[in-house]
Amino acid sequence: PDEAAVEAVRLRERQLTKPAGSLGRLEWLVEWLAAWQGKAPPTVDRPLVCVFAGSHGVTAKGVSAYPSDVNRQMLENFAAGGAAINQICASLGLGFKVFDLALDMPTNDITEREAMDERSCVATMAFGMEAIAGGTDLLAIGEMGIGNTTVAAAIYAALYGGPAEHWVGRGTGVDDEGFRRKVAAVEAAIARHREHLNDPLETLSRLGGREVAAMAGAILAARLQKIPVVLDGYVATAAAAILHAIHPSTIDHCVAGHLSAEGAHQDVLARLGKIPLLALGMRLGEGSGAALAVGLIKSAAAIHRDMATFAQAGVSERLA
Amino acid sequence: PDEAAVEAVRLRERQLTKPAGSLGRLEWLVEWLAAWQGKAPPTVDRPLVCVFAGSHGVTAKGVSAYPSDVNRQMLENFAAGGAAINQICASLGLGFKVFDLALDMPTNDITEREAMDERSCVATMAFGMEAIAGGTDLLAIGEMGIGNTTVAAAIYAALYGGPAEHWVGRGTGVDDEGFRRKVAAVEAAIARHREHLNDPLETLSRLGGREVAAMAGAILAARLQKIPVVLDGYVATAAAAILHAIHPSTIDHCVAGHLSAEGAHQDVLARLGKIPLLALGMRLGEGSGAALAVGLIKSAAAIHRDMATFAQAGVSERLA
Repeated sequence: PDEAAVEAVRLRERQLTKPAGSLGRLEWLVEWLAAWQGKAPPTVDRPLVCVFAGSHGVTAKGVSAYPSDVNRQMLENFAAGGAAINQICASLGLGFKVFDLALDMPTNDITEREAMDERSCVATMAFGMEAIAGGTDLLAIGEMGIGNTTVAAAIYAALYGGPAEHWVGRGTGVDDEGFRRKVAAVEAAIARHREHLNDPLETLSRLGGREVAAMAGAILAARLQKIPVVLDGYVATAAAAILHAIHPSTIDHCVAGHLSAEGAHQDVLARLGKIPLLALGMRLGEGSGAALAVGLIKSAAAIHRDMATFAQAGVSERLA
Repeated sequence: PDEAAVEAVRLRERQLTKPAGSLGRLEWLVEWLAAWQGKAPPTVDRPLVCVFAGSHGVTAKGVSAYPSDVNRQMLENFAAGGAAINQICASLGLGFKVFDLALDMPTNDITEREAMDERSCVATMAFGMEAIAGGTDLLAIGEMGIGNTTVAAAIYAALYGGPAEHWVGRGTGVDDEGFRRKVAAVEAAIARHREHLNDPLETLSRLGGREVAAMAGAILAARLQKIPVVLDGYVATAAAAILHAIHPSTIDHCVAGHLSAEGAHQDVLARLGKIPLLALGMRLGEGSGAALAVGLIKSAAAIHRDMATFAQAGVSERLA
């Protein structure tokens, strides 16, 4: 983090025509942007929402309320501008890109074998790193992939232990039987790979999915390119959790965009030390919660950049 | 509320390309908009932030960290586009109006006499009702006025009882001595008017201030004109609390934009049955928290209006 940029932000912040600290987390967000962009004032001129789409062999175990055909259909819906995330990006002026991570080649069923071999996992991370090469000053990462809340739950169970029931949620809306199938799938995956879950990167390649690997790559690349990152919900946070398990500081440039309604997200965010910006009971994915949070951050940056100082506006400062 | 419009929203909502309920409170917000606008789909095409500015005699008791001169200076800052709320409105595309409520004629010091006579209070409410005559489809109400967190605390103490310390906060940032002066002022005001605080409208005229009266008028006028309202923080909520004390249903068309860092706001919102949309530790006023919330509501309306249906996008619906 660029401490000089943070100091410059604080210096300006004290001169703006408002009581010190009165914008709460908005002020903190500007310091965070400056710290990781390495400049003051920071900018949110080219915010970008990237959605990574993956396909999961574990859907064979009946873990989702939707068929895997939806992956390809939703990609077309994104391209046609018909999904929720398209409307959020349009209403807030955010760039939007979708990445197809070999949707027609699902990962292996993790209850039976490893999702990807290590080579494929690394290649997918590299693909995710390339994804942001077009340039942005604030990156929101999200995902789409039928079955991927099961994969995220397996990753959390591997990283943090505890019963599968704690980590499994209703996803897109499975019924009680579907929920039990998800729990069983997570238990089977953990049992199957138990001997190989000590290394976070091996956990990633064994449990998947491709979108989680790509998001992990994108988070790392953003750090190197001085781009702060806004995490979406339960599945996107799994990519951050893998990196955090390697070393906690690897995700210092990330904020949690929102608290997902997928139950265990609160526990995960607490373990990562992240306080979500929004808590609206959303559980859609597609980067939707992160994108709404980018709207807040954009306003925070505009406030910091464009407000008048006490001197400029001729406003009296506080009484001595 | 227009139940037919709500039903029409729900019918469309079920056909949009996302799992049912997956947008959480965003979906509820669209129903709320439809209920009070009386149309489906509801719109957020002309959102408007109205800031009401008042001047308070109780500042003679040393209740604020800033001098009352700031009222006029901030009005000029709003007009010049230099305040925080200007930047929020610009970044989110919101209309913005400021109303000067006789800033050069402060209300009386409420520790000594009534803030306004009843005639003046009613005239100020009527002024607030006129304020929104220019037309809007979503109104955010906020305020500015040195000393007005003391007035709001007095109103809450009058409506809900309990010790003054519970209702008094740090406002724009008073020190411990200033805090004690605020508590003493609220205690003195309650003691002075004790016999006359059973009627909410008399409470309003006795404790003030003009911006609270004008906001109460604006909230009522919005209801009559089918305009949903987003409340800002601690002081704006006092206007809603007066109306709520007259009859709880009078503020059903209002949502709480955010939870203010002014401590007792949480208690007030709980009494009003309002769950805030944002909780970012803000305590600036100026409608800033409400305006950010309007950004969310604008996105929610855009999602509902513009998303593709399952049929339009050729996306498979959930498994039977």
